[in-house]
Amino acid sequence: MKEIRVGVLGYGLMGKVHSHAYRVIPVIYDDHALNFTLELACLCGRSREAVSKRAASFGFKSYETDWRAMVDRDDIDVFDNCGPDSVHVEPTIRAAESGKHVVCEKPLALTTDDAYRMLEAVKKAGVKHLCGFHLRFLPAIQLARRLLDKGALGRVLHVRAAFLEDPVANTDLFARHRPGPPVSGTIGDLGSHAIDLLRFLIGEPEAVAALTRDVVQSEEVSIDDVFVAIVAFKNGVIGTLEASKFAIGRRSSLELQIYGEKGSMMFDLASLNYLRVHMAESGPQDLDIEGTRHINVTDPTHPYAKYWWGAGHGLGWGDAFVNELFHFVSCVVDGTDISPLGATFEDGYKAVVITDALARSARSRKEVSITY
Amino acid sequence: MKEIRVGVLGYGLMGKVHSHAYRVIPVIYDDHALNFTLELACLCGRSREAVSKRAASFGFKSYETDWRAMVDRDDIDVFDNCGPDSVHVEPTIRAAESGKHVVCEKPLALTTDDAYRMLEAVKKAGVKHLCGFHLRFLPAIQLARRLLDKGALGRVLHVRAAFLEDPVANTDLFARHRPGPPVSGTIGDLGSHAIDLLRFLIGEPEAVAALTRDVVQSEEVSIDDVFVAIVAFKNGVIGTLEASKFAIGRRSSLELQIYGEKGSMMFDLASLNYLRVHMAESGPQDLDIEGTRHINVTDPTHPYAKYWWGAGHGLGWGDAFVNELFHFVSCVVDGTDISPLGATFEDGYKAVVITDALARSARSRKEVSITY
Amino acid sequence: MKEIRVGVLGYGLMGKVHSHAYRVIPVIYDDHALNFTLELACLCGRSREAVSKRAASFGFKSYETDWRAMVDRDDIDVFDNCGPDSVHVEPTIRAAESGKHVVCEKPLALTTDDAYRMLEAVKKAGVKHLCGFHLRFLPAIQLARRLLDKGALGRVLHVRAAFLEDPVANTDLFARHRPGPPVSGTIGDLGSHAIDLLRFLIGEPEAVAALTRDVVQSEEVSIDDVFVAIVAFKNGVIGTLEASKFAIGRRSSLELQIYGEKGSMMFDLASLNYLRVHMAESGPQDLDIEGTRHINVTDPTHPYAKYWWGAGHGLGWGDAFVNELFHFVSCVVDGTDISPLGATFEDGYKAVVITDALARSARSRKEVSITY
Amino acid sequence: MKEIRVGVLGYGLMGKVHSHAYRVIPVIYDDHALNFTLELACLCGRSREAVSKRAASFGFKSYETDWRAMVDRDDIDVFDNCGPDSVHVEPTIRAAESGKHVVCEKPLALTTDDAYRMLEAVKKAGVKHLCGFHLRFLPAIQLARRLLDKGALGRVLHVRAAFLEDPVANTDLFARHRPGPPVSGTIGDLGSHAIDLLRFLIGEPEAVAALTRDVVQSEEVSIDDVFVAIVAFKNGVIGTLEASKFAIGRRSSLELQIYGEKGSMMFDLASLNYLRVHMAESGPQDLDIEGTRHINVTDPTHPYAKYWWGAGHGLGWGDAFVNELFHFVSCVVDGTDISPLGATFEDGYKAVVITDALARSARSRKEVSITY
Repeated sequence: MKEIRVGVLGYGLMGKVHSHAYRVIPVIYDDHALNFTLELACLCGRSREAVSKRAASFGFKSYETDWRAMVDRDDIDVFDNCGPDSVHVEPTIRAAESGKHVVCEKPLALTTDDAYRMLEAVKKAGVKHLCGFHLRFLPAIQLARRLLDKGALGRVLHVRAAFLEDPVANTDLFARHRPGPPVSGTIGDLGSHAIDLLRFLIGEPEAVAALTRDVVQSEEVSIDDVFVAIVAFKNGVIGTLEASKFAIGRRSSLELQIYGEKGSMMFDLASLNYLRVHMAESGPQDLDIEGTRHINVTDPTHPYAKYWWGAGHGLGWGDAFVNELFHFVSCVVDGTDISPLGATFEDGYKAVVITDALARSARSRKEVSITY
Repeated sequence: MKEIRVGVLGYGLMGKVHSHAYRVIPVIYDDHALNFTLELACLCGRSREAVSKRAASFGFKSYETDWRAMVDRDDIDVFDNCGPDSVHVEPTIRAAESGKHVVCEKPLALTTDDAYRMLEAVKKAGVKHLCGFHLRFLPAIQLARRLLDKGALGRVLHVRAAFLEDPVANTDLFARHRPGPPVSGTIGDLGSHAIDLLRFLIGEPEAVAALTRDVVQSEEVSIDDVFVAIVAFKNGVIGTLEASKFAIGRRSSLELQIYGEKGSMMFDLASLNYLRVHMAESGPQDLDIEGTRHINVTDPTHPYAKYWWGAGHGLGWGDAFVNELFHFVSCVVDGTDISPLGATFEDGYKAVVITDALARSARSRKEVSITY
Repeated sequence: MKEIRVGVLGYGLMGKVHSHAYRVIPVIYDDHALNFTLELACLCGRSREAVSKRAASFGFKSYETDWRAMVDRDDIDVFDNCGPDSVHVEPTIRAAESGKHVVCEKPLALTTDDAYRMLEAVKKAGVKHLCGFHLRFLPAIQLARRLLDKGALGRVLHVRAAFLEDPVANTDLFARHRPGPPVSGTIGDLGSHAIDLLRFLIGEPEAVAALTRDVVQSEEVSIDDVFVAIVAFKNGVIGTLEASKFAIGRRSSLELQIYGEKGSMMFDLASLNYLRVHMAESGPQDLDIEGTRHINVTDPTHPYAKYWWGAGHGLGWGDAFVNELFHFVSCVVDGTDISPLGATFEDGYKAVVITDALARSARSRKEVSITY
Repeated sequence: MKEIRVGVLGYGLMGKVHSHAYRVIPVIYDDHALNFTLELACLCGRSREAVSKRAASFGFKSYETDWRAMVDRDDIDVFDNCGPDSVHVEPTIRAAESGKHVVCEKPLALTTDDAYRMLEAVKKAGVKHLCGFHLRFLPAIQLARRLLDKGALGRVLHVRAAFLEDPVANTDLFARHRPGPPVSGTIGDLGSHAIDLLRFLIGEPEAVAALTRDVVQSEEVSIDDVFVAIVAFKNGVIGTLEASKFAIGRRSSLELQIYGEKGSMMFDLASLNYLRVHMAESGPQDLDIEGTRHINVTDPTHPYAKYWWGAGHGLGWGDAFVNELFHFVSCVVDGTDISPLGATFEDGYKAVVITDALARSARSRKEVSITY
């Protein structure tokens, strides 16, 4: 049993949900798959009072108040960056350079240049890298990928992706419009999740055209609150892509619809234990039960299900991170690839490129090609 | 092309929806199945002003203000009784005795004796008879029956049926609790629909135990507003049966769930163009798409669908009557049996027997056996 | 009571559903609102055998096999064009010129020039004109409009509209790709419905950018089967607009989502008796029941509901035409305006302009401005 | 900060989900409410190999293979019995007698006598006691209780409760029918959850009448697989109560519907982050948006929500135990009452009494009164 020692930067929502995952992994994956132990080695945050309190309750052995101190420590194998957008770049690069395997929340960076630097750094360092697109690790999304890989839908024609959130689900909505460290808009924040899922499930986009809307009026900071886009994929699929932080009533809804020649799939994050699948069937004339199957993705045969609570006992949002970080740590321990199931910094970089293209298209009112 | 001349008693909601059906049948069934013409011969009601006005707008050639006058006319082939509960018996019997084929809305009668007299009368007269359990003629219900007939669910084990309505859907709710001609309570009014569907889909009940609740307090009239019951069927199925006129938020919801060894079915009148079917499947380990199929019952292969608007274009509540009365008139014209698809007076009588047993059980707090 | 005599061109699905509506109007609207009688004067179609049979079963007094003959008759007040796309223009213009009030199914025409000619003709003739965007007359859509007119959602920010159909719902899907009279693609056929609803509910579009996909490969005829678009509205709203005839599992689903600063609304044609409304509320801290209201649009206060079957008794797809043509005939009789509730030829023309802009954008891969 | 040392008996599903909860509590409740630390002191199971392995991965400091050894240890404050039904009684009583606060999974015992002995034991010992009806600690259920406490529904009239599971969700379904230690049937296993929720939300039952069905035929062991019942409550409410382990397609669905004079509520465990509430409203005539509110129970004002992931980020099934055991440990630390939010052994005993009454009614085919 190898021990993996983890250092986490940040104790906000992301730091909390990652810490939760590291504590839960050994309980959930016990019966089947566990060939490592996890040590929550260090939690890092700027406020000594807060970080010491959180480190204790989250179960970390130690804490730091300067990320450089944590990143330079010898007793850490994995550096997990859950800090604000503006501190994704330097700590992550330095951790990679000092040989740590790295996890970084999305968006990987606020500019394509920074994202590219991060990608180059992890490649050069030869460490494992994961960009925090945790939605890939929902069982329903993994099942969707599995079905697509098997060609269950035939040739895919058309896709729709929309990440819609209510203002009450965005506690920092108005803060984002005040001067301060740069932050991503809705395209980068919510859109990047949808972008990654489209790349994970459909393929590479070739070109996009977008419109944005700034709902919160601010003299100092202009940032998109809603965006809509069309996407042409290299494989001929066409689709829409949109996100909003002003979608009242959609607390946190990532709607995904995929239409192929032989069937379709629908997913909604607001009902995350379900995948809806409709297969065009050709039954006997008088016994037609073709319908949209609402699949409760908790059966023993479903992705990750055998490790969890049993058929019918659904997962929560936080549980996606348990699956994600189990995958990451397993790859670290076993020397296997993060891809294609997990998102690497290459995926993170590409999401930033597409994010950037969407923003440029919205400004220029012209179609923008995607080139990595 | 045979002409069938129809006389309708009553121009309230039931008279309206039956008249609507007779007008619509030739349009809908034109392409395929029509071997008769319909004449709306006579509408009958007590108020001359109202009935004359309605007769004109509904398209009837004439009207009467005394049901005896209509029933005795020679130019009527079908007598359709849409009057209040208290005038179901005598006009229908007299119409049958004078050789009319008869339709009577449910509940057939308010007592088992009356219902039995009606059944005897139509048998003796040798006329066609239909009791207005129109829900059988929803495409989803017919599909359910078809699937059950084929054994799609295997041995049926357990059934749930509840007809739940909001007070706003029951405009006569409080009137029923005032002195006047006797009327059926919730057991007879809503419950009888559920009873008929259970007999249509599951089989004959052997015994029932029930509880009732009178919500509206009235010194003069005691009538059940809510009832709950358990039912043991002769074939071993067990189930619950209930109805309420005080189910706020359920505008008109007949929920039906049927569980068998190989699968299950669910239906809700509030979403009448859908049947949900779940078949236990045994697919490959890693491609599990077993799910609850939400079937939009409008495909060309579905019951009645080829006559209607085409796949995806759903029917309304009133359209069930179009299918029902088309079936009835076709049987009249072709000399074929109303049963098993349609409900006869025998079904109407049996529903009254079960209704009566439920009421007796609620009073006695004892299980009551069903004997016809 | 004024009598309105109707001539209908075409006895396919559209001819059938319009004929159905004319027969049903007097039954449904009887109690309340009827100040006219309807005569189904003449049905027109090219095959004598078919049209004579249909005329009889639909209840028309006569039939014609040449549209010119019908249009020139004196005993017709309303000409209702339910013919194929390619015969919308000339018969409708000639009917208007001869003083008939005119109804024409959508798309009004296949070119903006033709649509403009039709608009000019009805204006010059001074007749009433209706373009068959029947979805406006679903109670849920009328309720949506009513709520928007009252400002219930506050400033509207973002809209999503997608009309998705399964190939089984498009019996002429492959025929459209064979040489013959020109027909509209998915943009014109399904998209135009979504376009009209967006104009009805949101406002005038300013510019669009679109992508299309031809799924059915045909050497002779190129026609769009799927399209996706983004739309900038003059009032600042941004949105997506798309349609597909290859959306397996969506038998006939027009999904509409409208997001405003104070609330949101959702509608799906696949569940047409419901409107979902979510209002941002501010209740007491510990009694939070803010939620997405699933409104069964059949209460007495809902649009058209008082004429129909009562609370909880939903309408079918065909019933939208009953409301639509009742509105039209009432306007003819009363001399009132078809607008804003109904769609006029001006709305029909504008829909063609937007359709054309979408197609041009898809070809040029550039944003196209909308100018009428 | 007080330290609470926990000993858990059993490492099957229940042992796993309780251990998960103890590990997660400090992470989730950190920010707000935590005034204790938790030590996973000891895990107990019969197989040394298995229990040692599980103790390590679950994070326990030690393990035992004999429950007496664990129960008698001095370094344990809380004894949590997650063992099979047949070992609920003796270990729990001995733990209470030795001064441990006790948690015991449901059903508390297999006979009313045993359950009563357990209740007497904890009362005499003066320790805190919790019976594992974790469903009370779903936010939606707590919200339902809060609304009922405030009288939001007015006088409650009618309730429906059904716990329906698919055979695939019951891995021990057939084992239960083989000879071995006694186990509860569906009434005790699933029914007891529904019984507890009815007592928690509605009140005390007065009498029940039930039917059962044994689906699995076994010569040696007769055990109910499906049951249906009617319930009369002391406060006049009437309702149905049922459960099945042969409900194909309902992976784990506890459907609960509560109808009162002013509104209704619906909950389904299969969609556990939602509560549906319908309030009878009286808005202006033409702006009727009364509807069934689908409430995503994750807003900051909702029960437990402020401790978790934020609005829109739903919980999973396992997370109910986190809330439940946090409540229990907090009561231990603060000396506050487990009741009324949590279920005590008194609630556990009463559930067994009702379970027993249901079974007796099914055998006798007579109504059975409930007396504790």
